[in-house]
Amino acid sequence: MTKYLYKCSTCNSQFSQEIIETNLSYLCPKCGRADKNEPLEGVLLLEYDYAALAKKLKLSDVLKLKPGSFWDFPWLFPLEFVNGLPEKISANSLAKLKLNENPVLLQQIEGKSILIFDDTRNPTLSFKDRASMLVVLKAKQLGINEIAAASTGNAGSSLAGICARSGLKSHIFVPEKIPAGKRLQIQAYGARLYLIKGDYDQAFDLCLEAAQKKGWYNRNTGYNPLTIEGKKSAAFDIFLALKGNVPEVIFVPVGDGVIIAGLFKGFWELKQLGWIEKIPRLMAVQSTGSDALVRYLKTGVFEFRPADSIADSICAGAPRNLYLAARAVRESKGEALAVADAKILAAQTYLAQKMGVLAEPAAAASLAGYFEYLEINKLESNEKVMLLLTGNGLKDLSALERWNRPVEAKGVAEWKKHFGI
Amino acid sequence: MTKYLYKCSTCNSQFSQEIIETNLSYLCPKCGRADKNEPLEGVLLLEYDYAALAKKLKLSDVLKLKPGSFWDFPWLFPLEFVNGLPEKISANSLAKLKLNENPVLLQQIEGKSILIFDDTRNPTLSFKDRASMLVVLKAKQLGINEIAAASTGNAGSSLAGICARSGLKSHIFVPEKIPAGKRLQIQAYGARLYLIKGDYDQAFDLCLEAAQKKGWYNRNTGYNPLTIEGKKSAAFDIFLALKGNVPEVIFVPVGDGVIIAGLFKGFWELKQLGWIEKIPRLMAVQSTGSDALVRYLKTGVFEFRPADSIADSICAGAPRNLYLAARAVRESKGEALAVADAKILAAQTYLAQKMGVLAEPAAAASLAGYFEYLEINKLESNEKVMLLLTGNGLKDLSALERWNRPVEAKGVAEWKKHFGI
Repeated sequence: MTKYLYKCSTCNSQFSQEIIETNLSYLCPKCGRADKNEPLEGVLLLEYDYAALAKKLKLSDVLKLKPGSFWDFPWLFPLEFVNGLPEKISANSLAKLKLNENPVLLQQIEGKSILIFDDTRNPTLSFKDRASMLVVLKAKQLGINEIAAASTGNAGSSLAGICARSGLKSHIFVPEKIPAGKRLQIQAYGARLYLIKGDYDQAFDLCLEAAQKKGWYNRNTGYNPLTIEGKKSAAFDIFLALKGNVPEVIFVPVGDGVIIAGLFKGFWELKQLGWIEKIPRLMAVQSTGSDALVRYLKTGVFEFRPADSIADSICAGAPRNLYLAARAVRESKGEALAVADAKILAAQTYLAQKMGVLAEPAAAASLAGYFEYLEINKLESNEKVMLLLTGNGLKDLSALERWNRPVEAKGVAEWKKHFGI
Repeated sequence: MTKYLYKCSTCNSQFSQEIIETNLSYLCPKCGRADKNEPLEGVLLLEYDYAALAKKLKLSDVLKLKPGSFWDFPWLFPLEFVNGLPEKISANSLAKLKLNENPVLLQQIEGKSILIFDDTRNPTLSFKDRASMLVVLKAKQLGINEIAAASTGNAGSSLAGICARSGLKSHIFVPEKIPAGKRLQIQAYGARLYLIKGDYDQAFDLCLEAAQKKGWYNRNTGYNPLTIEGKKSAAFDIFLALKGNVPEVIFVPVGDGVIIAGLFKGFWELKQLGWIEKIPRLMAVQSTGSDALVRYLKTGVFEFRPADSIADSICAGAPRNLYLAARAVRESKGEALAVADAKILAAQTYLAQKMGVLAEPAAAASLAGYFEYLEINKLESNEKVMLLLTGNGLKDLSALERWNRPVEAKGVAEWKKHFGI
């Protein structure tokens, strides 16, 4: 049985697994707050007995594992295991939840070898599957069959898809103006869709209340501690794919701040276990139209500003997980930077045309950030750099329309003349 | 060095590798014909020295391989290998070409365990990557940097993406009326797009002439023998994923007939090597709006009829590879059946909602065929059945719109009333 505590990232109080999970608590019972247009207070983090695990586990055995199945790390995920499989979950169900097993690619970018972490080929084609999958496995073990989430589109389509793979029912709360493609994906997976005349914040609050009233498990990002916990699996997959030789710098797209916080936690745990020496510097990349973290790190004060960016998946006026995202940047000795939408689209073009990876704009922000950083603050030439690609470009056709205009059709005779045939 | 011959599937003439490849021939030099609105005559098939390979190779070694990397079968693909890697291709390039490494899923469908072969998570999200990848690797070894293809959308987006991953230039010929999403995918990967005022047949013919004139390698499906050869890799992946225990029946969506011909060839070769006892029965599934193979198998005569179906990837009035598709059905003791578009959409719904796999309509045709076959001609209850899923549902949003209507948005107060909060 995996042992862990819940520890409040704001007031440092500790709570047992039983107290938090029996009551279906999410934020710190003492200081937790989810206020409108404000980052969350009292986000809980899971802590394991790293010293005991370091003694018990052998690095050479761990490095034999392959990326893509985080349940291969039974010691570091809050699930009950029996004979190596999560309790109440069959091997067939797990096969349907396998993430991309070949996530790290090497690419020459402007003369330098850059590592790409490709999460565009997960079951619903985004990084968010990591959080949805852990939440779904936990719900199964808790005996809960219905899960709710507020979303601007991607987290909702991920939860809907992973629930469909697992035989659970999902309830997705979204603002009415989400793009048609994301609505279609959510509905197609059979989720119950609640379209709200209002914004994401209102969807978030309504989802909290409705889930509590109905006894649904809640996957709201940042709010449910297992979203950070699921996303930390990316650090383990990077670690396994590179046989322990993690990169020195990782560019991470940041919206709500859960991905970067999860990544930091994963690397922090690997360091606690003595399996890596240094946590990679995490470079938070935002859009200039949604740069709350960049501003917060400069001023130390959160100020709400409505966000607007082509990179909708990292568009957040009030990043729910702002404080842990800031901690991830500071403690990893990283930086935060904002890039203009035009540069994000140029990076999306570069990835598609030079590398054949169709990434959504939010994902391409990591490359845009890399280019920006090269310009303003040269990286050491021998530093091993990685870019995190968080979602597939087919999830957002409207962004592709921005740089792929219709072309002129010609008759066969005209084309033959063109070719001289 | 891999040894193989090219053998004509119509007149049985044999040709050496040098004769075909040095001249960039595609169809049989003696009897090959590519006529408008007709199946191709003289399609070439590659033949290896199976007896010698059966002596040389050990099944137990082969079964240690994992699905997803067909270059792990150096003996059965027409590439030159050095130290286990295709000559002139780096390990990093190959990592970018890895297919889904977890392609076989088990699903309960109406009380029976059914195997699903999931090719929706390949690099460009379709089965067609198998053909594009082999063609691209061959082009690199032939020293050709530009590849052309005619397409109704999917083969073109696949070739464009795989070329971008490999640093090659692609030229894609399509009829002007392809859906915007497929046009966007082709363009985004940086392909040169030739939009033709005309139909797929005219695009096919123009592509043949233009490629010859320009010295581009041609990936037209069925026409280039390496399209069948690349697609046979699915049989090997099925074989590896199931540790040699291949299914007894496979439902295969059929348009041009190249996938089913490739699959048959792969299993036929496994049988030549003595690695399987029996070739699975291949059940060809077509749309009632595009059922040339079903009619041909009944009458023995090909009759051109313009095709129309929601499942655009299997919509072909004149299946280019009709004769080899027919042979695959007959020699595997399979059958061909046609299902109505409404049943294809119902199957797409089933796959998304019960299984969490968003497949395009052409892919869902395999499930529709399975349901149809259950109704008309009960399968043996203990037969191991597999469905082939050939492309991702996000490639075609218009099909999703058919069964996922817009829902009504409500204000927060109204939703609260709904939930009783």
